[in-house]
Amino acid sequence: MFFQIIDILGTIAFAISGALVAMNKRMDAFGVLIIAFVTAVGGGTLRDVMIGLEPVSWMRNMTYVYVITASAVFAVIFRKRISYLRTSLFLFDTIGIALYTVVGIETGLVAGLHPIICIALGTMTACFGGVIRDMLCNEIPVIFRKEIYATACILGGLTYFLLLQFLEERNYLFIIAGLVVITVRLLAVKFKISLPSLYKKED
Amino acid sequence: MFFQIIDILGTIAFAISGALVAMNKRMDAFGVLIIAFVTAVGGGTLRDVMIGLEPVSWMRNMTYVYVITASAVFAVIFRKRISYLRTSLFLFDTIGIALYTVVGIETGLVAGLHPIICIALGTMTACFGGVIRDMLCNEIPVIFRKEIYATACILGGLTYFLLLQFLEERNYLFIIAGLVVITVRLLAVKFKISLPSLYKKED
Amino acid sequence: MFFQIIDILGTIAFAISGALVAMNKRMDAFGVLIIAFVTAVGGGTLRDVMIGLEPVSWMRNMTYVYVITASAVFAVIFRKRISYLRTSLFLFDTIGIALYTVVGIETGLVAGLHPIICIALGTMTACFGGVIRDMLCNEIPVIFRKEIYATACILGGLTYFLLLQFLEERNYLFIIAGLVVITVRLLAVKFKISLPSLYKKED
Repeated sequence: MFFQIIDILGTIAFAISGALVAMNKRMDAFGVLIIAFVTAVGGGTLRDVMIGLEPVSWMRNMTYVYVITASAVFAVIFRKRISYLRTSLFLFDTIGIALYTVVGIETGLVAGLHPIICIALGTMTACFGGVIRDMLCNEIPVIFRKEIYATACILGGLTYFLLLQFLEERNYLFIIAGLVVITVRLLAVKFKISLPSLYKKED
Repeated sequence: MFFQIIDILGTIAFAISGALVAMNKRMDAFGVLIIAFVTAVGGGTLRDVMIGLEPVSWMRNMTYVYVITASAVFAVIFRKRISYLRTSLFLFDTIGIALYTVVGIETGLVAGLHPIICIALGTMTACFGGVIRDMLCNEIPVIFRKEIYATACILGGLTYFLLLQFLEERNYLFIIAGLVVITVRLLAVKFKISLPSLYKKED
Repeated sequence: MFFQIIDILGTIAFAISGALVAMNKRMDAFGVLIIAFVTAVGGGTLRDVMIGLEPVSWMRNMTYVYVITASAVFAVIFRKRISYLRTSLFLFDTIGIALYTVVGIETGLVAGLHPIICIALGTMTACFGGVIRDMLCNEIPVIFRKEIYATACILGGLTYFLLLQFLEERNYLFIIAGLVVITVRLLAVKFKISLPSLYKKED
């Protein structure tokens, strides 16, 4: 129940962030809805397709469809005032990537995959909705350039598998891994830490 | 038989439209062929992959390969005169999205999915070939910005499921839904109706 | 064993080429790693997903993860000197597409697909990692415009199925097909042959 509420909050944050990007690109209502959807479920869809869990999860649970549609409508109606919600959205988004990371790791474990692949699946679940959003909006994906976003997911995943040596109770591990993701992301934003660009100077 | 002919006409229209876009982007013969293919089968491929119908449909029926290749060759040879065919191509394309919408809905029903998901699959089948074409050509997908294209598919899908309450004969329903898609699209183009852009003004 | 070594050399070349493109786009370490990965395994992933071989191959064999990560790190460290390796990289890359083409054809044959589909799968395996790399980097895929790259793969595939009429021993066929890919690519680069652009002049 607790996890489900956080999952929905994360979905809302991703859907609204997608809708805002789409509106800034002057898309019409259909475009805004699709980008909201893709941002919220794109990562999980890619994960499910790659490991063979089909139909993909949002086709089996209508909650996502309703929540994302409502979030997109909300973003459209309140588009001029949504900057007041910026902090809340950032928090939802941060909680969202933490939860999506954990969901991705869990999915990989259930499929019997190697820990490194599980961490990759967690990061993919959390980050690739935004990557597909940016591809559709004709931008180089922002997470490849600016923010410690994926890195937070990877560190959360590493923590999970390191602690797995000592702890047996998975639920605790998931909570700890999620808290690592959230902490790294908040600290990175607060102290404006980002990975350096690896620009290759021409000889 | 009747459906198959329309399916092939739709495939031809999609393949030619893809080839024309690729030539305008100064692609070579291989690029033109690939973009023709992607435009014609991209939506159905995405649908099949997401619900787990693999190998995807164009790998199981060689008709698509032959029809698309022939269409691409035709578009290349007659590239300077193809503007005379503009109206025919527009009609094929419109019939094509109507049929693709119906095929997508049917595929979702067979897989036992929720009506909303079926409508999404119909729209995806009809529209996402063009979306992938535009992504490969480094453009923001045109259907997110300009035309009542996806909206026609969605309205056709809604009509299908509304009438399903009253009618039992699926074939009639498919024909009616297809006609709704065609009518909405033709009216939208004739009267230059499009969805408004939801541009978010900066505060 | 021989094939495995070539497979790894090809993977290294693809991963390094991806990392170099990503660094030129000023991506950070995470972006460089992801683009290296996508370039090396993107084509095979697309192939596996479309024919229903899941989890996709790089999730089942950790060698790819290690080799690609090491290649990306190598490319980052030696990014200023890598131009000395240009010829070696070009050779690895050419051997890589030859092997990837053969692997894709073999995968299609095992899945019982039509020869034309097998050739398409071989070409996809060899070329679509680069296509996805270019999409993520916001470029029109280079293979649609400039080089006889996909064409070499297609010719190799055709050779395979033509000789299949006369020869029974698949291993020889694979080697011959691979050599055709390599020869066509080397000759095309040496004599600067490329497919003509099919630019559609406006009437």
